Amino acid sequence: MIKMYDLAGENPDRRFSPFCWRTKMALAHKELEFETIPWRYYDKPKIAFAGADRVPVIVDGDLPVADSWKIATYLEDTYVERPSLFGGVHARAAARFVNSWADTVLNPLLARLLVLDILDHLDPADKAYFRESREKRVGMTLEAFAADTAGNIKALRSALEPLRATLATQPFIGGDSPLYSDYIIFGSLHWARSIGRTRLLETNDPVEAWRERLADEFGGMARKAPGYW
Amino acid sequence: MIKMYDLAGENPDRRFSPFCWRTKMALAHKELEFETIPWRYYDKPKIAFAGADRVPVIVDGDLPVADSWKIATYLEDTYVERPSLFGGVHARAAARFVNSWADTVLNPLLARLLVLDILDHLDPADKAYFRESREKRVGMTLEAFAADTAGNIKALRSALEPLRATLATQPFIGGDSPLYSDYIIFGSLHWARSIGRTRLLETNDPVEAWRERLADEFGGMARKAPGYW
Repeated sequence: MIKMYDLAGENPDRRFSPFCWRTKMALAHKELEFETIPWRYYDKPKIAFAGADRVPVIVDGDLPVADSWKIATYLEDTYVERPSLFGGVHARAAARFVNSWADTVLNPLLARLLVLDILDHLDPADKAYFRESREKRVGMTLEAFAADTAGNIKALRSALEPLRATLATQPFIGGDSPLYSDYIIFGSLHWARSIGRTRLLETNDPVEAWRERLADEFGGMARKAPGYW
Repeated sequence: MIKMYDLAGENPDRRFSPFCWRTKMALAHKELEFETIPWRYYDKPKIAFAGADRVPVIVDGDLPVADSWKIATYLEDTYVERPSLFGGVHARAAARFVNSWADTVLNPLLARLLVLDILDHLDPADKAYFRESREKRVGMTLEAFAADTAGNIKALRSALEPLRATLATQPFIGGDSPLYSDYIIFGSLHWARSIGRTRLLETNDPVEAWRERLADEFGGMARKAPGYW
């Protein structure tokens, strides 16, 4: 069975990393059995064997694979007889654009909205590291970074317009059924739902309906995980 | 031979519509012979037969097809033996996300940077219509809409980060060679180059190198068209 190191809060069942959610949806899509190991930031030595200092990390047999994109392409190329995650080489290339959009546009907006909730849910032993490393990264206090919640929610909803427009013409980014491109963005929104106390999308937003459909996939795997909405 | 109605300025050779450039690149990719008919906004009656009031409109034999996305899918599904524009059904679905991103994020930013240059290049008979219809759409004078050029250039360069990140790992959105997803965004940047006097991207930007590669495709079709950079 594949093992996966999965970012957890003080509650070991609270799994919130957007990148880890990409990987869990990918593993489930591939119909691969896997078990997750709760991982905290102080557990960096536990994944050093994989050459990584961040999760997700999977271990398939003896082989470690780190980085959500590398894991997705590893699974696709290793388990070719299983349902395709990308739907072909050209769709894989296009998924890279979706991945880049999520990493450079969507996640930075969500980070502002979630950073204080993340801090609040972390294992006590992770809190000082998280605050120090993130404040260094963003160049200000986390409280300053998270200020203007209303403005950040507005910016988030506006930034989702490309997805909203896509969903006006088809049920998933993958087409008639979800593919890894869907899981990429779902991971970001499920991050928000798993650790953020504030509902960020309007309930009548087509993006929210799409998120709910994906939460129901794989027997409701994502929906069953602890979260707020 | 396929006929295409193509937005033109006072100079009938100045073709600048981003949507028309998508279609011209698609026709060339499909190795289809086509001739363009310069079209101005006052020519709306000339495309009414196609049920359209905007270009691109193509006429293939007796069949008119309007709307750049519909034209691309028409060409793909009609000329199946020609080089694929999408690279499969799932890549076509993902291209819809790229199309939505260009339409909702990229083009509105470019519109602010180009609107006064467009006005300046239009046929005199088009200018009053253009100003009135666009000022109604944006709810302000075109001069107010175009204010803050420096800020708009900064926003544009930042908005292109998902493409820049994608190009850090592969030469085209389509993968090793360009597909319609590339032509979508190329059309927007070639719009800027065809009618805008201000160079908008830094010459060492990987997006600019990608744009130049696409301008060289099909015997330099796009590069040969009138433009400023």
